[in-house]
Amino acid sequence: MANYHKPESKTIQELRDIANKLRIHSISSTSASKSGHPTSCASIAELMSVLFFHTMRYKVSAPKDASSDRFVLSKGHAAPILYAAWAEAGLFPVADLQNLRKIDSDLEGHPTPRLNFIDVGTGSLGQGLSVAAGMAYVGKYFDKASYRTYCLLGDGESAEGSVWEALHFASYYKLDNLCVIFDVNRLGQSEPTSLQHDMEVYRKRLDAFGFNALVVDGHDVEELTKAFHEASVTKGKPTAIIAKTFKGRNFPKVEDEENWHGKPLGDKADATIEHLKSLIKNAGPLQLHPQKPLVEDAPATNISNIQLSSPPNYKLGQKVATRESYGVALTKIAENNKHVIALDGDTKNSTYSEKIKKVSTDRYVECFIAEQNLVGVAIGAACRGRTVPFVSTFAAFFTRAFDQIRMGAISQTNVNFAGSHCGVSIGEDGPSQMGLEDIAMFRTIPGATVFYPSDAVSCERAIELSANTKGVCFIRTSRPATAVIYPNETVFQVIGSKFYP
Amino acid sequence: MANYHKPESKTIQELRDIANKLRIHSISSTSASKSGHPTSCASIAELMSVLFFHTMRYKVSAPKDASSDRFVLSKGHAAPILYAAWAEAGLFPVADLQNLRKIDSDLEGHPTPRLNFIDVGTGSLGQGLSVAAGMAYVGKYFDKASYRTYCLLGDGESAEGSVWEALHFASYYKLDNLCVIFDVNRLGQSEPTSLQHDMEVYRKRLDAFGFNALVVDGHDVEELTKAFHEASVTKGKPTAIIAKTFKGRNFPKVEDEENWHGKPLGDKADATIEHLKSLIKNAGPLQLHPQKPLVEDAPATNISNIQLSSPPNYKLGQKVATRESYGVALTKIAENNKHVIALDGDTKNSTYSEKIKKVSTDRYVECFIAEQNLVGVAIGAACRGRTVPFVSTFAAFFTRAFDQIRMGAISQTNVNFAGSHCGVSIGEDGPSQMGLEDIAMFRTIPGATVFYPSDAVSCERAIELSANTKGVCFIRTSRPATAVIYPNETVFQVIGSKFYP
Repeated sequence: MANYHKPESKTIQELRDIANKLRIHSISSTSASKSGHPTSCASIAELMSVLFFHTMRYKVSAPKDASSDRFVLSKGHAAPILYAAWAEAGLFPVADLQNLRKIDSDLEGHPTPRLNFIDVGTGSLGQGLSVAAGMAYVGKYFDKASYRTYCLLGDGESAEGSVWEALHFASYYKLDNLCVIFDVNRLGQSEPTSLQHDMEVYRKRLDAFGFNALVVDGHDVEELTKAFHEASVTKGKPTAIIAKTFKGRNFPKVEDEENWHGKPLGDKADATIEHLKSLIKNAGPLQLHPQKPLVEDAPATNISNIQLSSPPNYKLGQKVATRESYGVALTKIAENNKHVIALDGDTKNSTYSEKIKKVSTDRYVECFIAEQNLVGVAIGAACRGRTVPFVSTFAAFFTRAFDQIRMGAISQTNVNFAGSHCGVSIGEDGPSQMGLEDIAMFRTIPGATVFYPSDAVSCERAIELSANTKGVCFIRTSRPATAVIYPNETVFQVIGSKFYP
Repeated sequence: MANYHKPESKTIQELRDIANKLRIHSISSTSASKSGHPTSCASIAELMSVLFFHTMRYKVSAPKDASSDRFVLSKGHAAPILYAAWAEAGLFPVADLQNLRKIDSDLEGHPTPRLNFIDVGTGSLGQGLSVAAGMAYVGKYFDKASYRTYCLLGDGESAEGSVWEALHFASYYKLDNLCVIFDVNRLGQSEPTSLQHDMEVYRKRLDAFGFNALVVDGHDVEELTKAFHEASVTKGKPTAIIAKTFKGRNFPKVEDEENWHGKPLGDKADATIEHLKSLIKNAGPLQLHPQKPLVEDAPATNISNIQLSSPPNYKLGQKVATRESYGVALTKIAENNKHVIALDGDTKNSTYSEKIKKVSTDRYVECFIAEQNLVGVAIGAACRGRTVPFVSTFAAFFTRAFDQIRMGAISQTNVNFAGSHCGVSIGEDGPSQMGLEDIAMFRTIPGATVFYPSDAVSCERAIELSANTKGVCFIRTSRPATAVIYPNETVFQVIGSKFYP
């Protein structure tokens, strides 16, 4: 393999030591809170050690830095070891880990962006990879920058269809800046996973889905450094590192045993910590430190004060479908701000999102018929203000991604959703195509703004307002042409839950 | 291949003729309604002809017959050709096809069970296979009957993650009575599909997902009869027939062309019908007729008047979590009626659905972490009153399957949903795990009954009532132990939207 340099033996040992230190923190913090998932942390300790202290390039002092590698912990319940990795990296005192799950601490049971080192909330399983794919898409095609994106999934959550939507998306778009890690620790919550340690099935599936699929021993730090290197030099396809691991690794009488999911070690904690300490060669300060980005090549972005490039231009009484004026407005704000992008799930000629292609074909991301991934990719694309995504499909089909939208709010996303074909006016197509539940659904989302423009003029302004409104925005559009009722110069604003001239 | 008998040449020709007759009906009915998807029908004409007039065994006179093969058209927008197949089979007059999409006709743009030959509504893409897998699971493990289940998907919808959840489920449970057909016609709604005609990628993916994966020419009726025969004799794994087809097949200047999705042929209709007629050798009455079931081995079911096997047995003030009393009640109604089953997504030790295993391990279906498929399988299992499914996971995670639940109502399903860990009482786990949107979500479902029992006594009765209540039922349970407040003998009833003693 080109340019792979085997780490020095002291580096290998230090990475092993860090893994066991991270295990100790995971036991200690979950014991203090009497809840949490130490065994799910233990299986990924070497992965986290190698990622955070050997492979990834990032600034500990600036976790949101535009040119730093990104990391998404899709198996959010392993939060304690993620917190431990950042603490050991130096972001905050290791002692703070003891505040896990306390009511006045942001170190919740599952990560959220209330923590400055978290891009998106995870904890509803199988969602992280779509988000990571969205980040990688932006990195490769919009930022055109060197940073890489890593996403770590559990094997249990790999049964979620959204994962396979995301895998297909990632290989279709040749996201070679994305590295997906499967923590195949064999055990789910209530029983072994369906595939247990059948690594060959994972390899076959990931190969068939277009990945450079590498099966590795997830507890062998040297093998991991090599695999991550291979991932970084593989061009034209993303890499999947399929790590065979053991749940509760290095926890005597707990490792690879059932019925330890989501349980602190209780009276086994002290002895386990002592055992782990005995495995550590260097108990003192870490010799290894995270590596900084080699280049600072992510461009600056400005996504404030986005405006229609020209005001609405209709005649009173003119018949225009709001879905069409959505497309017109999208084009206008895309002309005004180069970070406005559109994503759709093969309905772009119905929602009129395809109009953005007139500004530039690059500003449109086809996500095909996979609404969960469509929404997840948009959430990833919106992270750190890199883009202003507008996601569209039939309003009815956003129900497919309710869980992703819900998690989007927890992730403090600014994604804008445009749902077409609302209500019964689509008639003969039948109820499966009608947006009937969409307002109720988006109204449950904390901080969401729901726009239901009644004509083309208000629709154009709704799009402009949503581009500048924080949190989830939903714009509901109709299929039939309806009369323009507002003069072009009408000024609209969002006030609380109201939107009026 | 064992026992495959090549059909006589006149049978082959008749199947070809039927395919073109079905195409003519699809053009004619969509032209009459000036809307619909004739090109999406045309690609599956030979598949429909062979399935309905050669392969499937069913009673035209009794479409819901317990021992008949089942057919699910997952690509519901091809409804016109499904209607045409049933009409040609003799269920209703061919002339009625001209009522497609009329306001006083149940021949809607997408199929619903308002039609007596439809088991479930389709039209939100990627959902049919989970439903079919649920039917096949019931056929193999509960009914232990000979009927087979066929599910026809479009290639566009195969990007939906729910399809891959269902494929994994089907192979994990060795559903060799299930045959999945992929109509790979290359063209989506707004552009070519991501995989177009790359049949080898489909084959590799389906093979990796544990299927007997057969790539065939979807317009060659002889090859199709052979493939369906192979599917029927393959043991231990389901078969996927991956059919290379062309959208708008046999429509001159339309076949395999873009921009014909969802469009009637307009001024091309008459000439196309004339061309199709010229391809038909026998324009007279059909010589082939559907085959009846060989055996009538599906058992009778009785799912009425389901009762708790013993009344609630608590002390006032006793602390019991409603999620636990859910498990208790589930066990009691399972003891009372052998058709009560439970399905869960690897949370059975949290929701307490695992308690049903005490009655019989067979009554529990583990669906692993794939909530969309979990719900779809339950909808399939409930079809034709074969079982009374109770589906459980955290209330929050039913948001993952909102689209399936929504379609469940259109499918007139009687599935019961039990969502645990509702509200903020789960605290430190964080918002990703909290059921906060669940009531709003289920309240949007037409005809749904929402139960929020406040103690163990009312929870047990809620389960009993939901087992006997038509339509979607949702029972919301809590994690913490709470005091019993109702005497054991309290009588509860469902009255409108109210549930009180």
